[in-house]
Amino acid sequence: MGEFGLIKRLTKDIKPVQPSTQKAAGDDCAVMNFGKVKNLKSPRVLMTTDMLLEGVHFNLEYVPLKHLGYKAAVVNFSDIYAMNGTPTQITVGLGISKRFSVEEIEELYSGIRLACERYGVDLVGGDTCASMTGLTISITCLGVADEKDIVYRNGAKLNDLICVSGNLGTAYMGLQLLERELMVQRATNYGNNPSSNGETEGPSAFEGKEYLLERQLKPEARRDILEPLRKAGVKPTAMMDISDGLSSELMHICSQSNVGCCIYEDKLPIDYQAAALAEEMNLNIVTCALNGGEDYELLFTCSLDDYEKLIPVEDLYIIGHITKPEYGCNLIGRNGEELALKAQGWNAFEN
Amino acid sequence: MGEFGLIKRLTKDIKPVQPSTQKAAGDDCAVMNFGKVKNLKSPRVLMTTDMLLEGVHFNLEYVPLKHLGYKAAVVNFSDIYAMNGTPTQITVGLGISKRFSVEEIEELYSGIRLACERYGVDLVGGDTCASMTGLTISITCLGVADEKDIVYRNGAKLNDLICVSGNLGTAYMGLQLLERELMVQRATNYGNNPSSNGETEGPSAFEGKEYLLERQLKPEARRDILEPLRKAGVKPTAMMDISDGLSSELMHICSQSNVGCCIYEDKLPIDYQAAALAEEMNLNIVTCALNGGEDYELLFTCSLDDYEKLIPVEDLYIIGHITKPEYGCNLIGRNGEELALKAQGWNAFEN
Repeated sequence: MGEFGLIKRLTKDIKPVQPSTQKAAGDDCAVMNFGKVKNLKSPRVLMTTDMLLEGVHFNLEYVPLKHLGYKAAVVNFSDIYAMNGTPTQITVGLGISKRFSVEEIEELYSGIRLACERYGVDLVGGDTCASMTGLTISITCLGVADEKDIVYRNGAKLNDLICVSGNLGTAYMGLQLLERELMVQRATNYGNNPSSNGETEGPSAFEGKEYLLERQLKPEARRDILEPLRKAGVKPTAMMDISDGLSSELMHICSQSNVGCCIYEDKLPIDYQAAALAEEMNLNIVTCALNGGEDYELLFTCSLDDYEKLIPVEDLYIIGHITKPEYGCNLIGRNGEELALKAQGWNAFEN
Repeated sequence: MGEFGLIKRLTKDIKPVQPSTQKAAGDDCAVMNFGKVKNLKSPRVLMTTDMLLEGVHFNLEYVPLKHLGYKAAVVNFSDIYAMNGTPTQITVGLGISKRFSVEEIEELYSGIRLACERYGVDLVGGDTCASMTGLTISITCLGVADEKDIVYRNGAKLNDLICVSGNLGTAYMGLQLLERELMVQRATNYGNNPSSNGETEGPSAFEGKEYLLERQLKPEARRDILEPLRKAGVKPTAMMDISDGLSSELMHICSQSNVGCCIYEDKLPIDYQAAALAEEMNLNIVTCALNGGEDYELLFTCSLDDYEKLIPVEDLYIIGHITKPEYGCNLIGRNGEELALKAQGWNAFEN
């Protein structure tokens, strides 16, 4: 049907919901009017981009296309929320190989559109082209924020509290679960491994572990934490979303803010399902929480003066505090031992 | 050196020149202030995205990395100019396989940065990741325009003049030249073709044809035509840039404007080097001009009342006029014969 036919089919019935969207798909560019954004005195436009490549960021052997589309959009929204902004528009670049049917591309797109619907974001354009190799998804997201509300990475101050919006390492354990099951399936399919080996649990392999899969396959961006913070009168001093892992992101905030930090092992929020699976797989759940990545929780620092205001906020965990730069970035273990944080990121797990 | 080290190296010394750029690389998002853009009463933000994939859009056997980076940026600028806007910021998504050295990636980036410098655009962010397969480049560009200046595709009116900003089919002939030389080189390298066959002209194969190569490898976006038009007091009624080919783009304008068109073979601007090479290669240069693509010239329509004002504008060719929709889209040949235009696009040439 050709590129234009495909784009037409993928983008039909899209109705912009953002007042700033003046002209969406169908021309050389989308057109936005950010001049007067409701309730914003000095509107600023935020822009972020993320590229997802098959075989690097996702494995289509176990990632459903609709989930992939959803996640590809949400990780961009997460970057906008991490600046304390509101995502408003995205453009989608897709490189598609011939092995995909139109229905499969529609499935991928339906995930992107569902994410847009849920987060009130307009899909305003894109570029769809043939790929000689794997599937490529590149999404760019615009957002808005009032000048005074924007939170950068470089504002953390001595004695600030370090907070996260939810449990860590869970998405990584979800990935481990999927990878393990894939290995089992492959072994079964090739007949190298009799089904009686006790590992091929079939459909029940994921039973009781649905939450881990959800965190890996269909993460949400934590906009729900920003509103309660605003209502409580708290503006974070520095903020990032956790895509590469707590250690790595925390070290970014510290290096850009020229401070050190101290976090406590026993304060790290860890999901019990994730902990149980880590035990089963002989993994250290604390290492997973520090370096697992893809949790898309918000990591932020707040003034110590805001401590009382933070208490009633749900899903908020205070895990440590900001120190002088010469102290470095450290984790205090359960037995009081001090360990320097390392920015491994999730890539390190691949080795 | 890791992703962050690489990005730091690639983006060091980048100094924003656009007043709207408030915060470039180094945080979750770039931050822009489009509230007060000089000379614009009602600023609008334009957004466009383009994805380039190795093996589909470019062949690294003959495309130098610096040229590739330059072109990847410029084709985005071209989309902004095609709305009568000014490009202001880009983000760059790169998927890089292990076969590339840091120096090669710097070479690619230097082309992107050169294009940004020449067109006054800020590189404000990006995403660089490992690719298991070929090189992937995804660039998203923002731009600004005053509400009243924006030119869409749907404004062409009956009797409007159809104009292009420069010769057509030249980039396509440049591609043919490069492909031919590649075949010769391959044959020579594999020893299947003795060097005495008269085709392996070596370094002189491109002599006298440098312009064709330049149009293919290092196209420019035609911002230089917009200023004279503005000074002449002419606002196009509809506009697009020619990336897929004149026929295809003209049919877009006509379908979106609900009009027909009539263009004349003898009015099509054709470069003499391109015509000579087409002759040599047994190609019909008019077909190349209609469907070749990648010329990145501007195609626009203007009111017939503006005819006198258009005459002094350099590099502007009037190739036909807008008709009633029932007439369809037609080319009048040199002998007066009428041919219906087909939206082949450049992909059709691949078959």
